[in-house]
Amino acid sequence: MKNATIAGAGLVGSLWAVYLAKRGYKVDIYESRTDLRKANLSAGKSINLALSDRGWKALEKVGLGDEIRKVAIPMYGRMIHALDGSLTHQPYSVNGDAIWSVSRGGLNCVLMDLAEAQGNVDIHFNHKCTGVDLETGSATFSERNSGEKVMTEPGLLFGTDGAFSAVRKAMQRTDRFNYQQEYIEHGYKELSIHPNEDGTHKIEKNALHIWPRGEFMLIALPNLDGSFTCTLFHPYGGEVGFDALDTDEKVVDFFKSTFPDAYELMPHLLDDWHENPTSSLVIIRCFPWTKNGKVALLGDASHAIVPFYGQGMNAGFEDCTIFEKFLEETNEDWPTAMKLYEEERKPNGDAIAELAMRNFVEMRDLTGDPKFLLQKQIERKFAKLHPGKWMPLYAMVTFTDIPYAKANNRGKFQDAIMEEIMAMPNIEDNWDSDEVMSAMLEKLG
Amino acid sequence: MKNATIAGAGLVGSLWAVYLAKRGYKVDIYESRTDLRKANLSAGKSINLALSDRGWKALEKVGLGDEIRKVAIPMYGRMIHALDGSLTHQPYSVNGDAIWSVSRGGLNCVLMDLAEAQGNVDIHFNHKCTGVDLETGSATFSERNSGEKVMTEPGLLFGTDGAFSAVRKAMQRTDRFNYQQEYIEHGYKELSIHPNEDGTHKIEKNALHIWPRGEFMLIALPNLDGSFTCTLFHPYGGEVGFDALDTDEKVVDFFKSTFPDAYELMPHLLDDWHENPTSSLVIIRCFPWTKNGKVALLGDASHAIVPFYGQGMNAGFEDCTIFEKFLEETNEDWPTAMKLYEEERKPNGDAIAELAMRNFVEMRDLTGDPKFLLQKQIERKFAKLHPGKWMPLYAMVTFTDIPYAKANNRGKFQDAIMEEIMAMPNIEDNWDSDEVMSAMLEKLG
Repeated sequence: MKNATIAGAGLVGSLWAVYLAKRGYKVDIYESRTDLRKANLSAGKSINLALSDRGWKALEKVGLGDEIRKVAIPMYGRMIHALDGSLTHQPYSVNGDAIWSVSRGGLNCVLMDLAEAQGNVDIHFNHKCTGVDLETGSATFSERNSGEKVMTEPGLLFGTDGAFSAVRKAMQRTDRFNYQQEYIEHGYKELSIHPNEDGTHKIEKNALHIWPRGEFMLIALPNLDGSFTCTLFHPYGGEVGFDALDTDEKVVDFFKSTFPDAYELMPHLLDDWHENPTSSLVIIRCFPWTKNGKVALLGDASHAIVPFYGQGMNAGFEDCTIFEKFLEETNEDWPTAMKLYEEERKPNGDAIAELAMRNFVEMRDLTGDPKFLLQKQIERKFAKLHPGKWMPLYAMVTFTDIPYAKANNRGKFQDAIMEEIMAMPNIEDNWDSDEVMSAMLEKLG
Repeated sequence: MKNATIAGAGLVGSLWAVYLAKRGYKVDIYESRTDLRKANLSAGKSINLALSDRGWKALEKVGLGDEIRKVAIPMYGRMIHALDGSLTHQPYSVNGDAIWSVSRGGLNCVLMDLAEAQGNVDIHFNHKCTGVDLETGSATFSERNSGEKVMTEPGLLFGTDGAFSAVRKAMQRTDRFNYQQEYIEHGYKELSIHPNEDGTHKIEKNALHIWPRGEFMLIALPNLDGSFTCTLFHPYGGEVGFDALDTDEKVVDFFKSTFPDAYELMPHLLDDWHENPTSSLVIIRCFPWTKNGKVALLGDASHAIVPFYGQGMNAGFEDCTIFEKFLEETNEDWPTAMKLYEEERKPNGDAIAELAMRNFVEMRDLTGDPKFLLQKQIERKFAKLHPGKWMPLYAMVTFTDIPYAKANNRGKFQDAIMEEIMAMPNIEDNWDSDEVMSAMLEKLG
């Protein structure tokens, strides 16, 4: 029988195991944490995520679409909370498309269940990777409690072990391996809005809530139990940065003056503040992603990004879809498929890393800017008038599987056009005029 | 007595030990290699280097200027070897300034001797760093043969252990440590031109020889024994890249057609080719460079660069000069001095990394370009006419201690002016006219 080893039973590792199992592989996954399904533990990261088109495609392929949709909440747009408490709803799409709030832990459990249900997948928990042989595609794992070591059979080895991947660390020690870990100036802290007593949501359920405040922002995603998971994205340094918010009074003052409506919804703010860590945000870039036709990285291990486009998981799932496509096309010629996979995915990983950083600026800043809102309005009108001629960047990234790099390039082209359109005289009044619409059509060429 | 530990007895580590010893520290240097002075070994890198102003300043401060000058060969300019064998000499400066070819191993030996001569410096060879405690500033070293471990006293710990620094690796594992290793497309291989039978040099002794060929280049630096150390900087990939030169015949054909005059001087080319490895070239960027006021990185450990500006060692030595300056200014307040050191040096490390990559393009390409030569000529004339108004970028980097970042910015400003000057009509004929000189003066503002 054909064997494969996967390091990491997170979202991407569990999904990849299903794909490999369906190809007839005996798969052993080694996971350093305990079994999520037995302990009431988070996977160590933010507790909910936004599923979008690329993620759904990968889940549909393994037949999980319907099951996940039952536990996911569609968010049809952004709900912007201004400082004065006024709300603005910005739909994500003209077609009623949504991104879906799901629980990271819940989704991970479903994927592990599905992997095990294949019959040829074993997940070994509490096994930490302590050594990797890139030549043979074998790895050594040590059981956390007993210290017992397992050395896997030579063959195929996949690193789906996240931003601090042990498999990648072995690759980092090889000559000519390019690697970058870049921490951004902002960190994050998770907070929460509890449900109403009857279990309903305190604010609009079917939206992603944003409190954009320039240098920082608060967001909230809905959970099934009526609560919201909120995340404060905030610089470490500066006058009101995380480091400066070092007393309860300062935290309360900061929230009262900066997010007054959210503060009213968070009577337990200080409990959350103390209980939840302040976590850093890192971008990982590296190349190559594969070695010797035997070892490959997928997901955050090869391209960890900041969370501001909601694409981290979606990009990792798409790695699986694309890798699987190349296995099909090459008739499972692993060395060739691995080369094709890394060549196809690397520029797309770089593109979504760039897009995610840019979307941070948009979310925390531009969503509160009338000029930005007008531009979106013009784009929406034009897209409706000329279907197929114009797709906003956000839609390309979120509601299609156009390669990220291609979407990014097209987005830049469209941005250049919109810059000219926004400079037209009296654009505020004429924005929906025929003149503006024909100008756009002409510039598109 | 005050203690300090240094990991790495290379050029920067040995020099830094002298500075610390002079401040009254008992210094222990741990070096993973054997004693260079006892074995006939190279330090594992290119066997000669170009000393320039920043390097000399640091050496003069410890009284080594005269001793090193005796074993260094001044190179007053570039000697460009065209494909047809014709030679062009490009002086480095209008004032007769030179860069100096020295033996890396020889210089390292002198610096180790000087360190030991202080009386309070011990160098422990064959000790590999196996652990670092960033909190206490202590490190563990393992003796290569016996395996015996030494744990140093808590206190000050300096990583001068090069591009693959073990001290930095410990810092890499801390939260929010930014790190990048970037391999360029080119590698290098060392070759040689032997002396004449009477011990004289076969080509001009007092020049740095360059065979610029667009995508790649050969250079040669003079040695005291009449030989030259040559380095081929060459892409790995491509039609004639290292990977493609896989038979003796292909190597010989390549040299005969690409470097015909050099080929004639290298009857033992193939011996060198097989004996010497093809080595990669890496750029290392990271931040912070210090931790907890106790641990600091100097030299390649914090900012390894490509060798094309001849500034790697010079920049490392300047780290010592600047760090020492801050120790003096802060009255040896280490935490403050470390902060000042990293804040001052980081942008300069980034600048010289960028400049070194740009100089590669200049060396391998532009030095054979008549337009480039004309521009240099105009700059030289203007600099002579208006002393103090214009200093070519190369001179700022090589013959002054203007901070690299400042030199880089000034260089870009001057480049913008030269671009306009070179676009003046008939510049080839009028280059030394009053009109051109006044135009430059005016643009300088």
